[in-house]
Amino acid sequence: MQEHMAADLRIIPLHVPGEIRKGADLATLVIESAEARGERLNTEDILIVTQKAVSKAEGRLVRLEDVQPSAFALAYAAEHNKDPRHVEVVLRESRRIVKMDRGVLVAETRHGFVCANAGVDASNVDGGGALSLLPVDADHSAAELRDRLREVARVAPAVIITDTFGRAWRTGITNVAIGVAGMDPLVSYAGQTDPYGYELRVTVVAVADELAGAAELVMGKTDGVPFAIVRGFQYDPSPGSARELVRDASQDLFR
Amino acid sequence: MQEHMAADLRIIPLHVPGEIRKGADLATLVIESAEARGERLNTEDILIVTQKAVSKAEGRLVRLEDVQPSAFALAYAAEHNKDPRHVEVVLRESRRIVKMDRGVLVAETRHGFVCANAGVDASNVDGGGALSLLPVDADHSAAELRDRLREVARVAPAVIITDTFGRAWRTGITNVAIGVAGMDPLVSYAGQTDPYGYELRVTVVAVADELAGAAELVMGKTDGVPFAIVRGFQYDPSPGSARELVRDASQDLFR
Repeated sequence: MQEHMAADLRIIPLHVPGEIRKGADLATLVIESAEARGERLNTEDILIVTQKAVSKAEGRLVRLEDVQPSAFALAYAAEHNKDPRHVEVVLRESRRIVKMDRGVLVAETRHGFVCANAGVDASNVDGGGALSLLPVDADHSAAELRDRLREVARVAPAVIITDTFGRAWRTGITNVAIGVAGMDPLVSYAGQTDPYGYELRVTVVAVADELAGAAELVMGKTDGVPFAIVRGFQYDPSPGSARELVRDASQDLFR
Repeated sequence: MQEHMAADLRIIPLHVPGEIRKGADLATLVIESAEARGERLNTEDILIVTQKAVSKAEGRLVRLEDVQPSAFALAYAAEHNKDPRHVEVVLRESRRIVKMDRGVLVAETRHGFVCANAGVDASNVDGGGALSLLPVDADHSAAELRDRLREVARVAPAVIITDTFGRAWRTGITNVAIGVAGMDPLVSYAGQTDPYGYELRVTVVAVADELAGAAELVMGKTDGVPFAIVRGFQYDPSPGSARELVRDASQDLFR
């Protein structure tokens, strides 16, 4: 239950000057950018990291000139005025197409995420002729970054890697968690009693997604702020995984 | 564009002791609960308010004993082991049923929101034999509260009324905006150029939903914290409306 005098939450943007290159040590960048702001990362904090920063450091880029589009990609791209090489990469990143309608391609990625273009993105990528892909395993990326922070600075905050996804029914994108380490992404209010003594029905809140959205408010869409620290949110340490945020297909009425 | 030395965001929970009754003056409760925390609300702030607080103050409660279920509600309730009076109220609050499958009733409300049980909720409501409904017009409720804050305390923060909704494809609920006053709920990055000078494609972020989710992290699910102040998020003043967050049916692939 929320304490009555719950603490304030603080969300601290961390600015990284210049480009994040393949092989970059994100942990060192985090510590340096926190220091530049006069902040010190704590193990009780939650570190939010954009997918773009992780994908760049991991070299998850594909150059358009290296892509040979399939007949299917060529036909679809021609019909919807898209780059067939971009369509081809989206298809390669997809396990299944959920919707392919009105020029919008909603795909299920190999991780199980349902999002536009399987998370393949053309914006903000070095040179302009390249596409950025989601990390192969963003949970693993988050856990690695957490381990490296322990090595570099002897702190082990929870880590959430985020990307902005569209939603059914509501306009606009919001930032959500695609990789989690060190905390449970879901908080269950099951079995808690409300002030009247009634048992609440099982209520599970996707706090990792709310934390991701909160961080987006200070990170914006451009690349200058790839990290944010969330301070003051009490969480139970746990290995954690963004897979817990993927609704099982058998329970999904909209997949 | 996000400034490189963007400000920290602070999210301040406001505790209200005791029950919010029909006719309660929420503006006075907000000011008093802020004072009790040593905080002063500013016009630059964003005030987040739970649906439950607004619905209680507006008397949006239905007593189960007053509900006469229809034949359809009786049949559906019998099949899924639900209270037929609860089902009846959900149907009355619905403009359309989106899915009625595996015991889950996803409805489109008169406002256009798509959510489980049309936002009708049994938890935390006085006496236990009552259901809480969404406000008739939460934009209007938000605008009224804003006007009243101007009267009572000469401040006019943006106001967001929130409720927790489930999502397609992802587990867990998140807090989203159902009423907005004083700010644009969407921020568009259209036409901004990224650090490489490329024009970003139109990217519209549902910041009101991200703000709602951020506030949930300090409000929790029980009724002790019906308000939160978000401080440090720069927004463009605008009348605002949560209707902007409802995807038009003609552009919705999942409605």
